[in-house]
Amino acid sequence: MQEQDLLQANERIDQLYSQDVQIIQSNEVFSFSLDAVLLANFVPATKKTRLKVVDMCAGNGAVGLFLHSKIPSHFTEVEIQPRLANMAQRSVILNQLEEQYTVLNLDIADLYSKIDKDSVDIVLCNPPYFTDLPDSKKNPNEYLAIARHELKTNLDGVVSVMSGLLKTNGRGYMVHRPDRLTEIFDIFRKYRMAPKRIQFIHPKPGREANMVLIEAIRDGRPGGVRIIEPIVVADQQNEYTPQVKEMLYGK
Amino acid sequence: MQEQDLLQANERIDQLYSQDVQIIQSNEVFSFSLDAVLLANFVPATKKTRLKVVDMCAGNGAVGLFLHSKIPSHFTEVEIQPRLANMAQRSVILNQLEEQYTVLNLDIADLYSKIDKDSVDIVLCNPPYFTDLPDSKKNPNEYLAIARHELKTNLDGVVSVMSGLLKTNGRGYMVHRPDRLTEIFDIFRKYRMAPKRIQFIHPKPGREANMVLIEAIRDGRPGGVRIIEPIVVADQQNEYTPQVKEMLYGK
Repeated sequence: MQEQDLLQANERIDQLYSQDVQIIQSNEVFSFSLDAVLLANFVPATKKTRLKVVDMCAGNGAVGLFLHSKIPSHFTEVEIQPRLANMAQRSVILNQLEEQYTVLNLDIADLYSKIDKDSVDIVLCNPPYFTDLPDSKKNPNEYLAIARHELKTNLDGVVSVMSGLLKTNGRGYMVHRPDRLTEIFDIFRKYRMAPKRIQFIHPKPGREANMVLIEAIRDGRPGGVRIIEPIVVADQQNEYTPQVKEMLYGK
Repeated sequence: MQEQDLLQANERIDQLYSQDVQIIQSNEVFSFSLDAVLLANFVPATKKTRLKVVDMCAGNGAVGLFLHSKIPSHFTEVEIQPRLANMAQRSVILNQLEEQYTVLNLDIADLYSKIDKDSVDIVLCNPPYFTDLPDSKKNPNEYLAIARHELKTNLDGVVSVMSGLLKTNGRGYMVHRPDRLTEIFDIFRKYRMAPKRIQFIHPKPGREANMVLIEAIRDGRPGGVRIIEPIVVADQQNEYTPQVKEMLYGK
């Protein structure tokens, strides 16, 4: 199939050169951002081919697709919005990765009907960051509002399913906002997910972190949290740092 | 009084040039380390002169004394070990700060007999870092063992008293180990201390954090945690970074 045949109106194809993968994007509906690239970068590579990996709140499938060679195992991409799940499915086809990826258009609350509890090795999640408080300025675009605000799920729901899917000692990876760090830890503990490795992302030198990446182990022993070296995204001239350039464009 | 008259056997006087203060030290008993300098650096300056400040687990009084001009208010230094409290008292005299500082040789568990609950504006704490598990290698020197291991108090006890002393919206400052971060957050929440500002300390570029500095507000609203720019202590050649040099030696 020709690339253009896979595109619908107002869609484009973006390439993540470092991972040699193409993603169907749309500013009107959903585009991956640096968050997805950083989350994929944070997940360690493995040579194992029989892992079960689930990407929850998958959007257009970017996080899972970025990991196609770092984790040469089967991925299930789960997205509640039909339009976004359809984009993810077409990106899978575009990259000829149909054998490695399954896309489910499903609410994560219904996920146990498709994936057994306690059966997954790795769960990835780039969830909506913002609580759906009455005074929060929602995005008037509903696609983007659902992706960014806790309208269809919330942190408790996401971590509950992450933990439920994972095997004992399975690993969950999440990107979120550091201003909710105490709440994140509370909810992780509630669902027996022990944070083990944390990385903060600072937009520029001297600025506070605006993202946090967390690796947590289901039923892991509490304690032993490792805070690895933070990533600074851009320099004072707003140019990406060498580390981030490499994530985006490769070596 | 001459400086030498204030010294006992095997003691010396170290100067923190950046704060123009002298501290009586002893390798056999207790010497402040970079942790104390970093904690004092983390605490914001104020011009208020009527604050009540308590330095718990004060050791030889270093953290409180470093702040004599950043916080021109009254300090109470609380230390359980008589020998260390005595050193702190002599450092107060050495710096001619008797009007600003009171040293109490007291177990923090008995502190409410001397300082009213809900009466303190700022509590500082550089507590013992290491849990007193049977298999932990305790320091054979009892002075240092008590300062470093949770023999006489523990994190729960320290945060309980910190919260009990503070007024509503009073601020607690603590330095601790990041590997206990989830436990720290749990215990802070238990005692209604809301972490608000956090700074990680990395010993060198590329290395994991080995200290964490936390500012928490008693009865503060949960959420809104700020992760400020981390501090890297030394470069790859083991030389202090300019930021740390300034903390130690001044501008």
